[in-house]
Amino acid sequence: MARKVFNNCREDASAGGPPKRVSALNTTTDSKPPIDQDRLWNDHMALAAITDPGKPWTRRSFSPRFLEGRAWLREQFLAAGMTVRLDAGANLIARLEGTVKGAPPIMLGSHSDTVPSGGRFDGISGILTALEAVRALQASNYPFRHPIEIVDFLAEEPSEYGLSCVGSRAMVGELDAKMLTYTNAQGETLADAIIRVGGDPAAIPHMEKPVIAGYLELHIEQGVVLERNKLDLGLVTGIAGITRVEIALKGAADHAGSTLMRYRRDASLPAAELLLLVDREARAFAGRNEGHFVATVGVLEISPNAANVVPGGARMIIDIRAEKVALVDEFVALLDRESTAIAGRLNVDREGFAILSQNPPAPCDAHLRDLLGRSADKLGYSTTTLASGAGHDAAFISHIGPSAMLFIPSRDGKSHCPEEWSEPEQLAVGAATLFETIRLLDGQNI
Amino acid sequence: MARKVFNNCREDASAGGPPKRVSALNTTTDSKPPIDQDRLWNDHMALAAITDPGKPWTRRSFSPRFLEGRAWLREQFLAAGMTVRLDAGANLIARLEGTVKGAPPIMLGSHSDTVPSGGRFDGISGILTALEAVRALQASNYPFRHPIEIVDFLAEEPSEYGLSCVGSRAMVGELDAKMLTYTNAQGETLADAIIRVGGDPAAIPHMEKPVIAGYLELHIEQGVVLERNKLDLGLVTGIAGITRVEIALKGAADHAGSTLMRYRRDASLPAAELLLLVDREARAFAGRNEGHFVATVGVLEISPNAANVVPGGARMIIDIRAEKVALVDEFVALLDRESTAIAGRLNVDREGFAILSQNPPAPCDAHLRDLLGRSADKLGYSTTTLASGAGHDAAFISHIGPSAMLFIPSRDGKSHCPEEWSEPEQLAVGAATLFETIRLLDGQNI
Repeated sequence: MARKVFNNCREDASAGGPPKRVSALNTTTDSKPPIDQDRLWNDHMALAAITDPGKPWTRRSFSPRFLEGRAWLREQFLAAGMTVRLDAGANLIARLEGTVKGAPPIMLGSHSDTVPSGGRFDGISGILTALEAVRALQASNYPFRHPIEIVDFLAEEPSEYGLSCVGSRAMVGELDAKMLTYTNAQGETLADAIIRVGGDPAAIPHMEKPVIAGYLELHIEQGVVLERNKLDLGLVTGIAGITRVEIALKGAADHAGSTLMRYRRDASLPAAELLLLVDREARAFAGRNEGHFVATVGVLEISPNAANVVPGGARMIIDIRAEKVALVDEFVALLDRESTAIAGRLNVDREGFAILSQNPPAPCDAHLRDLLGRSADKLGYSTTTLASGAGHDAAFISHIGPSAMLFIPSRDGKSHCPEEWSEPEQLAVGAATLFETIRLLDGQNI
Repeated sequence: MARKVFNNCREDASAGGPPKRVSALNTTTDSKPPIDQDRLWNDHMALAAITDPGKPWTRRSFSPRFLEGRAWLREQFLAAGMTVRLDAGANLIARLEGTVKGAPPIMLGSHSDTVPSGGRFDGISGILTALEAVRALQASNYPFRHPIEIVDFLAEEPSEYGLSCVGSRAMVGELDAKMLTYTNAQGETLADAIIRVGGDPAAIPHMEKPVIAGYLELHIEQGVVLERNKLDLGLVTGIAGITRVEIALKGAADHAGSTLMRYRRDASLPAAELLLLVDREARAFAGRNEGHFVATVGVLEISPNAANVVPGGARMIIDIRAEKVALVDEFVALLDRESTAIAGRLNVDREGFAILSQNPPAPCDAHLRDLLGRSADKLGYSTTTLASGAGHDAAFISHIGPSAMLFIPSRDGKSHCPEEWSEPEQLAVGAATLFETIRLLDGQNI
């Protein structure tokens, strides 16, 4: 029955006439999607096993392990009847042609690189659930109207060249000439590294931005919202913008024994007050319910950091993530004002206040999110909307077409560490939801 | 006239009869002591110039520069008519015999080693002002009853073997067998290093503790009490004890983007609260006027110290210095109680609370301090009593005989850095006061 509906769709499209808007109820089967949970799990374990052996789980972008992982992925894509190519930005792209000539592809994907000593799910789950959904669609003889592409974006994690999301930046025309000159510790440029993994940096400025029907990225949540609320899936409202502020404080590095308390200019004191203020104010900002808001002092260094010296210097980096730019601006202004006031009160110089980086938030496409939600509902999975506090390739792909993300639970919210974990059934739930969503999207107007 | 008085003293002693108690007024000249300020200053500059050239002012204990400095010192001692020897602990000892057979020596001294990138006064001023005082006494034909010894103690500063005051510990029988096995980064033991600089570690356990008439150590203040109060000299009441406490906190290192504020267990928060508490309480303890009291968080490290990770760990070292042991005990108990309470309130584990080291305070000898004060008064120098917050060789020498310290001002209280500075006249004031004090002490009962 389902096949018939699909055939109708294809026939509509092939006929060249205006395709009908196909509702979810009409386009789906009554049975569960034929996702093979064991195969999906085994794929995760097989790709994760391609790791630096002394430092699981590590498959750094541009490394021999990374290329080994991609060779394994290529085999799986080919086995699924897909063609595989590399673009100029060294993104690995698997493709299955659709029946409607010139239809823009439905793109899925994520990344296969990891942080050092990372986990077995961050990144590869987005690729492997997409592959499993495509396999399941093929097994049910689903007749794709749109081409399907699964992309392994190059170097999503912060790379040794000081840049993250290298491949997705390249694909959307935002990997600029200066970035290509960034070097790693050995002095190799990012451009040379891209050549080494099969890309063509000289061609990157001339890459055509893909036209896509939509981009879907499944990812582990890397937080505890789903787990704490016992929910199956997160429908991502947007990817928070990331602003990083550095504050430097300068007092006097005096002898810790002979400098009386009243004569000190201890730079660690305003740093500690600011650290507590960042936490207190971030909770207040988050409490306003104007979307995702978190702020963190992840870096704090005092100098000279010796037991017998009063700290003469302190440096901190504040990471602020929000869906609304206005909240970030307000928080940065607050930090500027309060750091001046606190340092002044404690007789310490606020030596520096700098915005190190500022990436704007990237809202997810409301229509694609709706399709994900309808698919989950149909399959009986519980959902919530939530923001992504972490950056993802989807943030860049949103610059060229509708993009959405689907989160599955992370045990204890752990990520970027060997304890990172999602259950086999949670991965299968995600793949089944992608299966249904691809069908919905594929059935829509081209 | 003065010489006549001295001759009388000597004659009294030579006669073998009970020497008369000689008052300060009787034993001093009306003129200023013949301290050669320029020579004293030039000596400082000459010894300071023996430094690692790329890293002034650096003359690390056990280094070739250190031996070069000692060779220079030996020449100056010999030129002043003193004999020079090394003891088993590789302390360099210059000696001038007195007229009374078997009289215990009046010992003076300090150390010629420096911290890396240190100053030109910490340590060497104690040796060079003693030498200048002895030269001036000789120039005025002062007839020493007691022998005079000037000691360059080995490795007063924290050495590469993880120990400070190596030479003074050895001299008083407190350099134990375990300490001799400490190694530097290259794996050399302290025992081997002592052999390398002319000592005899095997003989250290059998060294006879010297019997001394008294020990006087001039040092730069390394604080701003004298400078702020426009005073010439500090009469040291005692050397504060040093207790070091390490506190370790453990929360959860979660993703800084995706972990909502309410789900965090940020170990930096209790660390910041404790840092502020240490400062606040130390001021309160100091305000009780029960002697010197300071406390410092000199070491603070958060982990993983990455901008995008909520700090999962924090470690701090609290340095507490006081003249009264009871205050230290009370402060440590307060830290123990408060760190437990604060960590508990913030849902972070107090993973560790350890006393890393505990050196007791060393009171200075009241009689010697009185002689220093009378000498300063006679010469018209202004003084105050104050404690030494820094450790000194005098703390160990106080275990075998009366010891006292005299402080001269430090510009801006700077020490252990190239900016360390005392004026030529401040050094001369110190040397003149030693000159008078040696005379007073030498004139007393043997």
